[in-house]
Amino acid sequence: MASEQGFCLWFTGLSGSGKTTITTLLVKELRKRGSKLEVLDGDIVRENLSKGLGFSKEDRDTNIRRIAFVADLLSRNDVPVITAAISPYREIRDEARKKMGDRFIEVYTQAPLEVCEERDVKGLYAKARAGEIKEFTGISDPYEPPENPEILIQTDKQSPEESAQQILDYLERRDLIPAAELATAS
Amino acid sequence: MASEQGFCLWFTGLSGSGKTTITTLLVKELRKRGSKLEVLDGDIVRENLSKGLGFSKEDRDTNIRRIAFVADLLSRNDVPVITAAISPYREIRDEARKKMGDRFIEVYTQAPLEVCEERDVKGLYAKARAGEIKEFTGISDPYEPPENPEILIQTDKQSPEESAQQILDYLERRDLIPAAELATAS
Repeated sequence: MASEQGFCLWFTGLSGSGKTTITTLLVKELRKRGSKLEVLDGDIVRENLSKGLGFSKEDRDTNIRRIAFVADLLSRNDVPVITAAISPYREIRDEARKKMGDRFIEVYTQAPLEVCEERDVKGLYAKARAGEIKEFTGISDPYEPPENPEILIQTDKQSPEESAQQILDYLERRDLIPAAELATAS
Repeated sequence: MASEQGFCLWFTGLSGSGKTTITTLLVKELRKRGSKLEVLDGDIVRENLSKGLGFSKEDRDTNIRRIAFVADLLSRNDVPVITAAISPYREIRDEARKKMGDRFIEVYTQAPLEVCEERDVKGLYAKARAGEIKEFTGISDPYEPPENPEILIQTDKQSPEESAQQILDYLERRDLIPAAELATAS
């Protein structure tokens, strides 16, 4: 059955670029279609796998490698996973891609820094500008955008609903989830 | 299908008590029966999830909590898992049990310290006695045996093959894996 295939939607993008918002919509729809699903967002992982790690390049890399380790364990056993950490470094994302092969689907939530900073949902940009948070991606720490993401989402130009739909369409096209009609009919 | 149910065989026991030996036999047989399966042994986890952690009570607890987090993610998605770390502290094992409910199956590989030390497969006891390894379970660090393990294996009295069979019988009785006859026939 199509819904029993493993894949990893690997979100990457600046803080405030829409990773969590889109993931929330996506989870709702995927659960409706009866798919197994796990979400490894930055906070869950920092709490359960990476407590004690900071935000230096080395610690960020370690954190992302742990996410990739767990995402691989799940997806290779046909459990779809969504990861939603900033994951700013290209090299480590590519390491995750290599590990998971064609189960790895990079989703780049792209938005200009100014837009993300204006949204500032968690008030983190203000703190970063005030120097209260050091090593903040986009301000005082680098972000390396993907060069060929499977899915590019321009969150300053499309709504969260449109973005979620774009991802669902992609998954349907690749036969990784059942089509919406079928799901409704069953 | 019976083989699609998640469970966690949580091995606990001293170094040299037989966790890895029995796990190896078990994996071979379970794979033969076509079951999905992941193994999280102490070394794999220390490498992929817990690099940098030491062997203080606090670090050991963190390590075991991470194993439990991943074992829960897998088993709740119907992927059977075997964990094979010493996991010396009862309280943290019970935390894992609480998290996984009746998916959690504690397997206590019991053998007198003297027997484990005599085996000393990895030469670790010798190093611990020489003071080259500090905080070594059974020598300079505590081991708290389970009070009511689902499966008790006395590895000084039974062979690894008998031990693996005992676990397979348990899993069959609970209908968590297909019976050997069925597996052979299919």
